[in-house]
Amino acid sequence: MAASKGSTLASISARWLASQGRKLSTTATGLKKEGAAVVQEGQKFEMERRFTTEDVASYVSLCGDTNPIHTCDSAAQSAGFQGRVVQGMLYAGLFPAVIGSNFDGAVYVSQTLNFRTPVLVGDDLCAEVEVIAVKKLRHHYRVTFATHCFKKGDPAVVVGGEAVALLPV
Amino acid sequence: MAASKGSTLASISARWLASQGRKLSTTATGLKKEGAAVVQEGQKFEMERRFTTEDVASYVSLCGDTNPIHTCDSAAQSAGFQGRVVQGMLYAGLFPAVIGSNFDGAVYVSQTLNFRTPVLVGDDLCAEVEVIAVKKLRHHYRVTFATHCFKKGDPAVVVGGEAVALLPV
Repeated sequence: MAASKGSTLASISARWLASQGRKLSTTATGLKKEGAAVVQEGQKFEMERRFTTEDVASYVSLCGDTNPIHTCDSAAQSAGFQGRVVQGMLYAGLFPAVIGSNFDGAVYVSQTLNFRTPVLVGDDLCAEVEVIAVKKLRHHYRVTFATHCFKKGDPAVVVGGEAVALLPV
Repeated sequence: MAASKGSTLASISARWLASQGRKLSTTATGLKKEGAAVVQEGQKFEMERRFTTEDVASYVSLCGDTNPIHTCDSAAQSAGFQGRVVQGMLYAGLFPAVIGSNFDGAVYVSQTLNFRTPVLVGDDLCAEVEVIAVKKLRHHYRVTFATHCFKKGDPAVVVGGEAVALLPV
């Protein structure tokens, strides 16, 4: 399935479905579960998570990041950290998880990420997404979310940014 | 460790190290392995990876994304896909892995991601990062990378964007 320049996952998916005589909205409706959220500006959704040494090691196996600050206490301490560092893209993965868990059929379009504070193994995290813009299109909503992740009890953002997703109408 | 507004992981790390009488460059040098790359504009680094059903299930456990298009053939097909869809943030994790594997001591600062084409379980992927700007700072390089991921044999970008990382001097 080749993508033309400037195509997005959403447009590709829509064309793919159209080639089968279907629409993105059909897909979304087909997957939408009872009680799924109805999108509105100002809504917030969150997920809490603590990553363990086993989680971090598992993610190393998945993505191949050999940076020892993630897997070795002495390397992490030599690098100035108080413990093993959780990979940024691992906890950033909580954002699509929050969105996908609240809006079945969501198609993730984009994400920006600004990493600000190290996250260590055992830190209690809260990933929060807030609906900041909703655009009603023909077959779906194009929704922009502010995405922030905090350590519990600390207002400092460990990773911030924005995500855009297509959600079912 | 509270972060002031506008702080980055790099500045936090630098302050953290400074509080211990150390500098980021010391950290980086301490971790730098023999044969580590010397950063120059135009350099490209890549990593190949194929994600399996087990990988995708493992990532669901890690991040909590309950979207069934990742774990259920029939749900994926109902959604118009030819097979189970790999989570975008999973294969986007190849970018920091490429950077971290080539530059020990790298501190990841930011990443933008534009998802364009679905990736299915079993697709052969190639994640490529290219050095597009290098700024020499006092204790490290601030390096901007173009980040693109392709399916092998297909020039279409499945996810594109830019990453910024601090690398050892």
